[in-house]
Amino acid sequence: MHDVKAILFDTFGTVTDWRTSVAAEMTVWADARGISGDWLAFADDWRSRYHPSMDRVRRGELPWTILDVLHRASLEAMLPEYGISGLNDAELDHLTKIWHRLHPWPDSVAGLTRLKRHYIIGPMSNGNVALLVNMAKHSGLPWDMVFGSEISRHFKPDPEVYLGACTMLGLKPGQVMMAAAHNYDLKAAQALGLKTAFFARPSEYGPKQTKDIAPTGDWTVVARDIEDLATQMGA
Amino acid sequence: MHDVKAILFDTFGTVTDWRTSVAAEMTVWADARGISGDWLAFADDWRSRYHPSMDRVRRGELPWTILDVLHRASLEAMLPEYGISGLNDAELDHLTKIWHRLHPWPDSVAGLTRLKRHYIIGPMSNGNVALLVNMAKHSGLPWDMVFGSEISRHFKPDPEVYLGACTMLGLKPGQVMMAAAHNYDLKAAQALGLKTAFFARPSEYGPKQTKDIAPTGDWTVVARDIEDLATQMGA
Repeated sequence: MHDVKAILFDTFGTVTDWRTSVAAEMTVWADARGISGDWLAFADDWRSRYHPSMDRVRRGELPWTILDVLHRASLEAMLPEYGISGLNDAELDHLTKIWHRLHPWPDSVAGLTRLKRHYIIGPMSNGNVALLVNMAKHSGLPWDMVFGSEISRHFKPDPEVYLGACTMLGLKPGQVMMAAAHNYDLKAAQALGLKTAFFARPSEYGPKQTKDIAPTGDWTVVARDIEDLATQMGA
Repeated sequence: MHDVKAILFDTFGTVTDWRTSVAAEMTVWADARGISGDWLAFADDWRSRYHPSMDRVRRGELPWTILDVLHRASLEAMLPEYGISGLNDAELDHLTKIWHRLHPWPDSVAGLTRLKRHYIIGPMSNGNVALLVNMAKHSGLPWDMVFGSEISRHFKPDPEVYLGACTMLGLKPGQVMMAAAHNYDLKAAQALGLKTAFFARPSEYGPKQTKDIAPTGDWTVVARDIEDLATQMGA
């Protein structure tokens, strides 16, 4: 534990609440246009296309593609199902970048601010650099370094993401902690020698969420949230 | 001017004062060991090997190599000339990482803190990520993103460095400003369409400095220092 120099965070769901953020922006946007819809379901639908879209890159069906572009393609595929058509490029870009404007969970900024005094902190996310930098500016996430997916040109849980970040920080895997609300992410990091921290975000996927309610591995730290992680890490 | 969304800074000499920082650490280290020497000259000597060492990478005489490794090789080549020998790996690593602990100029933290409220700010440096992240932690440089040299695997003034950062930020070159106390850096950035900001650091190379005392190009902004740049940029 005392060897940890850096704590890297998953972002979507772990630091920010994508579901209610996407739904809230879509509600305002649609209301202004007289469009009705279930925007929480819209958020869930958009997010459900996230892993499949990255898998297309991973299988080589698409060349290396950043998440902004994958989000845009998913959006364009979805919109007709929600009765939305005829948007111009600027409107599609604005909606795609809802993901740059996600809100943090209530404990995120306070917890990260405490951790930053003692550790290098950064996102280790499948988001691209612009998405993560804009998200941090929008929400006040006080990152020291932003590990966007272009830096390794891989998506988690590919090992290149975790090991590339360790190398760039000049640290051994055991000096780096991966923090996430998703057990699959921690499993991949642990297998490479990183320390791990889990805290549940039981409403990430809404009231019917069944996965990632509890830790499923022997993680280095299990916390209630990022503030509690800071406390447990002595920050 | 009003299009600028991000301001990226050269670091060695522009944001931090490498010469007196290296000399001060070497003085303390050497005094503790009863070694006398001219440590300002030592700093100048070490820095004089910086461009030649990167040129070896650029010419393909060395594979891609981060600045920490180049600094270490330069150090090991120099030490005998200063009567220093027999250091172990930990001592050589400690001295190499003096470059991670450089002090900012008096206006740097205040000016960057003001600019950060209005712009994305980051280093765009030939330093590697660990060097730049540690420097920021050491000195309180409030970067939003750290563009270390590994991210493009090129050294300035190669175009890949400047254009790669613009692409990762999702910005056009005209939306990004390069800020440096070195005209050569701004010339390269300007040729690619970036905005430019110059401020002199007339004691960077000591009292006999003759180059980069004044702007030699038609830069977008010429300022006195980073605080003045913040004022001119409305921050």
